[in-house]
Amino acid sequence: MSEYAVLGKNVPRIDSKPKVTGDSKYADDRAAPGCLTGRILRSPHPHARILNIDTSQAEKIKGVKLVVTGNDFPNVHFGQWIFDETLFVRDKVRYTGDEVAAVAAIDDDVAREALELIRVEYEELPAVFDPEGALRPDAPVIHEDFEKTKAIFDVRDRQGNQACKTRFHHGDLDVGFKEADEVIENRFTTHPHHPAYLETHSALAEYDASGNMTVWLTTQSVFKVQEVIGKLLDMPLSRIRVIGSTVGGGFGGKKPRIDHYAAAMAYKTRKPVRITLSREEDMETTYQRHPSIVDIKTGAKKDGTLTAWDFRMLMDTGAYADHGPSILAMGCFHARGPYKTPNVNIEGRLAYTNKTISGAFRGYGNPQANWAVESQMDILSRTLGIDPLELRYKNGMGDGDPMVNGQRYPEVNLRETLESAAEAVDWGKAAGTPANGKKRGIGIACGSHPSGGMGSSAIVKVMPDGTAQVVSGVIEIGPGEYTIAAQVAAETLGVPYEKVRMVTADTDGTPYENITAASRITFNVGHAVRLASEDARNELLARAAEMLEADVEDLDTGDERAFIASAPDRGLSYADVSKAANIHLKGPIIGKGAYSPSPPTPALENIEGSAVHGFPTHAFVTHIAEVEVDEDTGEIEILRMICSHDIGQIMHPGGLGGQVDGGVTQGIGYALLEEMVYDGGVLKNADLVDYLIPNSLDIPTIEHRFIEKPDPAGPYGAKGIGEAVLAPTASAIANAVYDAVGARIMDLPITPDKLLRALDRM
Amino acid sequence: MSEYAVLGKNVPRIDSKPKVTGDSKYADDRAAPGCLTGRILRSPHPHARILNIDTSQAEKIKGVKLVVTGNDFPNVHFGQWIFDETLFVRDKVRYTGDEVAAVAAIDDDVAREALELIRVEYEELPAVFDPEGALRPDAPVIHEDFEKTKAIFDVRDRQGNQACKTRFHHGDLDVGFKEADEVIENRFTTHPHHPAYLETHSALAEYDASGNMTVWLTTQSVFKVQEVIGKLLDMPLSRIRVIGSTVGGGFGGKKPRIDHYAAAMAYKTRKPVRITLSREEDMETTYQRHPSIVDIKTGAKKDGTLTAWDFRMLMDTGAYADHGPSILAMGCFHARGPYKTPNVNIEGRLAYTNKTISGAFRGYGNPQANWAVESQMDILSRTLGIDPLELRYKNGMGDGDPMVNGQRYPEVNLRETLESAAEAVDWGKAAGTPANGKKRGIGIACGSHPSGGMGSSAIVKVMPDGTAQVVSGVIEIGPGEYTIAAQVAAETLGVPYEKVRMVTADTDGTPYENITAASRITFNVGHAVRLASEDARNELLARAAEMLEADVEDLDTGDERAFIASAPDRGLSYADVSKAANIHLKGPIIGKGAYSPSPPTPALENIEGSAVHGFPTHAFVTHIAEVEVDEDTGEIEILRMICSHDIGQIMHPGGLGGQVDGGVTQGIGYALLEEMVYDGGVLKNADLVDYLIPNSLDIPTIEHRFIEKPDPAGPYGAKGIGEAVLAPTASAIANAVYDAVGARIMDLPITPDKLLRALDRM
Repeated sequence: MSEYAVLGKNVPRIDSKPKVTGDSKYADDRAAPGCLTGRILRSPHPHARILNIDTSQAEKIKGVKLVVTGNDFPNVHFGQWIFDETLFVRDKVRYTGDEVAAVAAIDDDVAREALELIRVEYEELPAVFDPEGALRPDAPVIHEDFEKTKAIFDVRDRQGNQACKTRFHHGDLDVGFKEADEVIENRFTTHPHHPAYLETHSALAEYDASGNMTVWLTTQSVFKVQEVIGKLLDMPLSRIRVIGSTVGGGFGGKKPRIDHYAAAMAYKTRKPVRITLSREEDMETTYQRHPSIVDIKTGAKKDGTLTAWDFRMLMDTGAYADHGPSILAMGCFHARGPYKTPNVNIEGRLAYTNKTISGAFRGYGNPQANWAVESQMDILSRTLGIDPLELRYKNGMGDGDPMVNGQRYPEVNLRETLESAAEAVDWGKAAGTPANGKKRGIGIACGSHPSGGMGSSAIVKVMPDGTAQVVSGVIEIGPGEYTIAAQVAAETLGVPYEKVRMVTADTDGTPYENITAASRITFNVGHAVRLASEDARNELLARAAEMLEADVEDLDTGDERAFIASAPDRGLSYADVSKAANIHLKGPIIGKGAYSPSPPTPALENIEGSAVHGFPTHAFVTHIAEVEVDEDTGEIEILRMICSHDIGQIMHPGGLGGQVDGGVTQGIGYALLEEMVYDGGVLKNADLVDYLIPNSLDIPTIEHRFIEKPDPAGPYGAKGIGEAVLAPTASAIANAVYDAVGARIMDLPITPDKLLRALDRM
Repeated sequence: MSEYAVLGKNVPRIDSKPKVTGDSKYADDRAAPGCLTGRILRSPHPHARILNIDTSQAEKIKGVKLVVTGNDFPNVHFGQWIFDETLFVRDKVRYTGDEVAAVAAIDDDVAREALELIRVEYEELPAVFDPEGALRPDAPVIHEDFEKTKAIFDVRDRQGNQACKTRFHHGDLDVGFKEADEVIENRFTTHPHHPAYLETHSALAEYDASGNMTVWLTTQSVFKVQEVIGKLLDMPLSRIRVIGSTVGGGFGGKKPRIDHYAAAMAYKTRKPVRITLSREEDMETTYQRHPSIVDIKTGAKKDGTLTAWDFRMLMDTGAYADHGPSILAMGCFHARGPYKTPNVNIEGRLAYTNKTISGAFRGYGNPQANWAVESQMDILSRTLGIDPLELRYKNGMGDGDPMVNGQRYPEVNLRETLESAAEAVDWGKAAGTPANGKKRGIGIACGSHPSGGMGSSAIVKVMPDGTAQVVSGVIEIGPGEYTIAAQVAAETLGVPYEKVRMVTADTDGTPYENITAASRITFNVGHAVRLASEDARNELLARAAEMLEADVEDLDTGDERAFIASAPDRGLSYADVSKAANIHLKGPIIGKGAYSPSPPTPALENIEGSAVHGFPTHAFVTHIAEVEVDEDTGEIEILRMICSHDIGQIMHPGGLGGQVDGGVTQGIGYALLEEMVYDGGVLKNADLVDYLIPNSLDIPTIEHRFIEKPDPAGPYGAKGIGEAVLAPTASAIANAVYDAVGARIMDLPITPDKLLRALDRM
């Protein structure tokens, strides 16, 4: 199937053997003699003023080496886009879990005992937990000093609890609605959703006598950790080394915070400090998918042609903005789905509430938007009496159609995914009525997700025995990032895959890499490794030409040799060239490569607030769900899940399949099961017993259909689909449920109790 | 004194704070949970055939995880130049200490118990311990399979126990002796000398489920360790990571062997294995300075002009050749000192004996040659009645004079060092007679040593905050290698020294570096770091030009900024440029540099055997010793030690002073105290109680005189003197002792008993 020697093949994955044998070293596995245990004192209140903190009793306990509060550190404001965070809160706490103080002690028991002895006087304040309430004029203001925080993001209309606002618009909405034969208007809401990675957050920090900090941790970006620690401790970045340990699941949520505390306490104590979160603390204080409220008003002609699309999204960012502004922007970017509509207005608002911080989670605003868009499209098809598949064919984007931010899609493979998915289920055949009395239904939903944003770089070294190392700042978070990078190097250099080793995720030893996120690694790291491998190959050729006293233009490579194309016997092995390079000539064979997409789209007239960066490519997907609903219990069984994906060049079929299965499973959890339940700002199901993630019995065989069509922009035609796979899953399931029982659930997740209520069975 | 911002200044040394605070991590400090202790079973006989090895009893002990012999590994022959070694001996043992088997056990007690239960049947063979005896036709042959071993060195005349032979010659010796008015002939001998570093050898190896080996150890070259392990275990070099821990003294002797055993056992057990040598085992089984026998026959005219120089050197390499062939070649390279002689014959032979392996030790053959040459020159001056200083002025080399290998010295600063040293002591004044009845004397000796051989490379990274990292494979062994490299980067980039961090000695993360040895680091790493820094600075300028929309030719740098030379306000900080580079543009600022001197001198007609590589520069030195000798006890007190050194550009005055003090101290130990005493092939003083190294009471204040004259070939004019400092020390002391009491000791060390015997007092 593949024209390549290594790409497209199911080579053994680099991360699989250590993972299945238990050999992988996670952050908490790392030995550190004399290591102290760090623990954080967190707010028990959702919103309260701090009147006094008394650490004197805690400091007296034997074995306590350090007790710190905000007063022990510079009052640095930081944040992903809006600088609304500090290392420890000083003035007031803003959610149940906010960091108030921390201790470092000889063991966990002593640390916990010390936490209990820190006396904090609070004055409780009125709190607000829902984003609409937060935006009312009488709502308690969560960030009074809002104006004082700096933002590196162009955030407009910051006021009260509104952290930021964004708007895209083109055409004329009034005209669009006037042209419409039907106008429908609906509200769709989503819930907080936790990544529920198996490994909780963990970090170990050491600070040495030379003034160098080393941090080992579970993270998706060692370079971002380096940047924040440098800022918080006012340290030169050259002296901060961050090493990524094996990541036991990331999904966007492995944006560390506890490393700040471990590093700060290592800096003060000059001893190693480790902090590992319990499952409860992890779920209570790390990042969740933004809850959202979306109102859509759609105008369409009788034949299904969309004429107007008015989309208003409100996202709940919790106590701090974190990634919120750009997640909101990306939610709005996906606000009209992959459909052409001449008149569009899209508005997003981000609200602070006194809850856990919302943040990045696979999909990054897309699943919330998709849920609203694809439900609305299904409702429209029923209203107009047009087949949902036909409605999508009719309005679906094509090559060159504009995105909401004014850019144009270079290539749109939407129709191909629709056709392929429809073919798989023989779309249009009757759903049938099973003998068990349950109801069957089928639902379809589409989506797309960009890939390729932000910068990557790589170094490729050819060793004196002709084997190679790919030196990259990237960290593997599960889908096979290391394997694909090694495949690209092997393919480009012409070296067997087994001879390529990945050297990764160490800010000292590996070149800059932005983050393992945003469906970007196959695309960006793929490009950077390709370029570095080409550079190394060129260097091999140049050195070989010198050694062979030949012109470099006359040389070719093959079988791990550089040789004279017209006389293949006259050549040198890569090993010979590399060995000589180390000994005499111009130094070792070190190829460099860097890739970055074009700079962000300049602010256009029709964009207000947060701009969405330009992306070099987009993957399109169609999911079809077949469900069986028990109207007595409200139970939903997924019978089939057809996932048809536009994928460019397939790099590793096994890894791709795993990526789809994992993403769709997470989408099924989002649709039916996973919900973080809050009561008065307190998370009530902060464990994996009460927070339900899908198990093997909840998941059907996920059927894959791939549109393999190399993307001209991608490395060897590849693109990323890490997030696209998840976008339309919940929508397809909801549409199938409606198809089965005629009840439309507008609020995720679709739980039995909601369904029974909708069916008037409760 | 210095025209530079950073070079030539006593900036705080990078290695000093961790060393004085105890924060440095030596190889044995490294934690490794579940680590096994490795121990090696060594031969109790100097020469014996192995009839049988029975490990069955040892394997039965609880806690023993592995027992291995040569049968468990491929029969790979390896060695520095001659491939005469194997991981474990199979056929026969060749010295008391040869590796026969090894165990890995849960702790050291169990490992030692297991060693005792390994039953080895030996058939003892006649042994030979002196190199002249070893070369006799009837001597027991130590390497019967000699012809089967491969050599990467052009070793001629290998026969019997003669490992190799080397010869340089030019002119006509017969003519030279005919022209001479005086001919003198003497034999000078030296003893085995141990580097006696404070930290013994230690290595920890881990082998992971992905097939990657990691070795932490005390070494002078991580890349050489990588190469040997790859060969021994037949592993791709890309999968072997070697990390250098803090080195507690090297001096050439930190060429590891135990890492081979640790790695081999980690490979078999899949568990971490550590081996740390006790002081006894370290002295018995690591490398010593070659004992030597030198015969010199010299012809000179009455006016002191040298006419003929016949030098024959026999070195004792012990059981294996190791560095012997090139140490012999370097000894012969120094065979006529820094003196012009038209007719020269130099011959060297390397003999195997049944003793500990001789190897690299600061000076690398030079101290042995210097001892003979400078003693001979002193005898000649007495014979001819010419002042020793005058004799050296008369015959001393000048710019462009030829070396023994046919190359020419680019610059000779010998006369300057002679003048400076003579001035310091007011040469020619009477020595005086002290009131204590002891005898005073003064002695002079000269020497030179090359620097700059072999390849170095470096990477210089500019971080997003404008600070910098120097990424280099070099490992600090004490004299300040890291500090000088950071100074060069700071000077070249124009960044404060404090903002530069060294990232070093890790084969995964740092580019190729040959070895910290051969007085080469300041020169070679200096060049590589300079080039990499220039490359990084050029990259900063290019990026800044793009951002400023200016021509790169119009830009300049200063104050950590790149700016338009004619409008300095229009500029960007390094931080701004570097941050932008990571985010959008062409990837991070990574400068590369590599330096290597010209390839080895092609074999010339007048060189037989081992060629000596071409060196880009040489440092010249003169030492003058003033001593006081007690003729009743034979005790020698050094009153003054004047060390006058040709140094090029001084990079770090404090480090330079330490380098001289340390080298001269080692030279004093070589002259008077340190001797490894063997009896029947067994080392009798394998500890630091009976093996005497100089303490503070043995050492006078060492007076430094530096000829600071930037070397056109060096980085910013610098050159290396790590070995030059040691070369003439023993010779100067011996000449002073003769001057004091008229007794000439021809055999090092000059101990009280030898002196009393020479004075007929014993």
